[in-house]
Amino acid sequence: MIKVSILGTGNIATHLFKTFSKSDEIEVVQVVGRNKKALLAFGPEEKTTSDFSNLKSSDIYIIALSDDAIQSISEEVKINNGLLVHTSGSTSMSQLSKHGRHGVFYPLQSFSKSKAIDFNNIPICLEANTKEDLNLLKKLASLISKNIYEIDSKQRKSLHLAAVFVNNFTNHLYHIGSEICKENTIPFEILSPLIQETAKKIESLTPYEAQTGPGKRGDFNTISNHLEQLKNPEYKAIYEQLSNSIQLTYGKEL
Amino acid sequence: MIKVSILGTGNIATHLFKTFSKSDEIEVVQVVGRNKKALLAFGPEEKTTSDFSNLKSSDIYIIALSDDAIQSISEEVKINNGLLVHTSGSTSMSQLSKHGRHGVFYPLQSFSKSKAIDFNNIPICLEANTKEDLNLLKKLASLISKNIYEIDSKQRKSLHLAAVFVNNFTNHLYHIGSEICKENTIPFEILSPLIQETAKKIESLTPYEAQTGPGKRGDFNTISNHLEQLKNPEYKAIYEQLSNSIQLTYGKEL
Repeated sequence: MIKVSILGTGNIATHLFKTFSKSDEIEVVQVVGRNKKALLAFGPEEKTTSDFSNLKSSDIYIIALSDDAIQSISEEVKINNGLLVHTSGSTSMSQLSKHGRHGVFYPLQSFSKSKAIDFNNIPICLEANTKEDLNLLKKLASLISKNIYEIDSKQRKSLHLAAVFVNNFTNHLYHIGSEICKENTIPFEILSPLIQETAKKIESLTPYEAQTGPGKRGDFNTISNHLEQLKNPEYKAIYEQLSNSIQLTYGKEL
Repeated sequence: MIKVSILGTGNIATHLFKTFSKSDEIEVVQVVGRNKKALLAFGPEEKTTSDFSNLKSSDIYIIALSDDAIQSISEEVKINNGLLVHTSGSTSMSQLSKHGRHGVFYPLQSFSKSKAIDFNNIPICLEANTKEDLNLLKKLASLISKNIYEIDSKQRKSLHLAAVFVNNFTNHLYHIGSEICKENTIPFEILSPLIQETAKKIESLTPYEAQTGPGKRGDFNTISNHLEQLKNPEYKAIYEQLSNSIQLTYGKEL
């Protein structure tokens, strides 16, 4: 049985709490948060506290707070030789180095509070300052997911950057697509099968191989037609930028 | 029974041929193409020809050729009062107006020759110059897909533009993500669940609602960290452009 405490009451804290609670081999000892109202969602009073300096004994303490709160909470908490980890993609492990045993437990997914998550497929990226603690984190991670990776702080920083491109920026392209549809009274759902197929393709092809479209073909006629259609200057600039980058990517081969 | 001839031997021609051939209510009368070697893949000799000026009688002739070949083939073919349509997202129906009966049969999907396609979910966008022929196209489309839309030439042009954003440009963002992973010896597959989830989300939320990340939060600290990490000037420019556009989209609300 691994004893875990969760520090935080936001999206990641909520999803971790739900997932850990389902496992017979994990005991959630305590959930810790400043927001007393938010704490109510995490079960009975004796299992929650808003006092970060008075924590019950656990094997692992997981900080699931916003990036800029991690260091200060790390300074504040008193844990008796437990392992302290954070869940952030863009924060170095060393921000927890005040504590002898420290590490990172980073689930790579975009969490919404309202949407249920099946952790089983979520990659969990692990790091710790000793081999023993890396193994302890692996044990915990393997109870909730089958995709476990050892990723150091430098790699995790890059991974977080890559995730911004494939998740945040991709979603903004979906938004631009939906705006273009709206202006022309086209239901955005028409684009959904294409969006799903584009995402599915990279499971069997590299994105480099999967590329299609006027930018790749060097079809300047279509490109200039498209630029003419775009009235929003931001969207026009994005079209030019991405189109150029695709041409550069494939032009090198000619 | 609807009698159909396909003009072309490329990706779309191949997928339409395979799908039509499975239906008991569609007869593929002929496949027409200049490339005699490519024609061999479409069955027995009496069913294929490379002579565009001597076509067998069909109800519908489908031009599945590159955009710039559509008009010249339309001028060349002789069809006895059949319905001539093309499959292009970015070409106006009027390019076929030499023929009394003309229209568009545009399956909105990104086709790779090697990857099997289930047409049943592919949106088919239809247009015709008479109501009768629109109904004929609807009948044909409904035999292979459950997603049928009436889309006029102006709307289709916009839809094609929107598709470039959500498919071609999105795939290029996947490519940039994979390059960042490669530079840091991170397996790109780590990002796959996030990519699938980002695509799935827009089936239950609008992309506007689904947006997350440093751009939306106005987290300038993370943004400047990310820009510092990016060495490739193209990728840096894309990051800035998309990040600004996200800030503008959500900044309006503040």
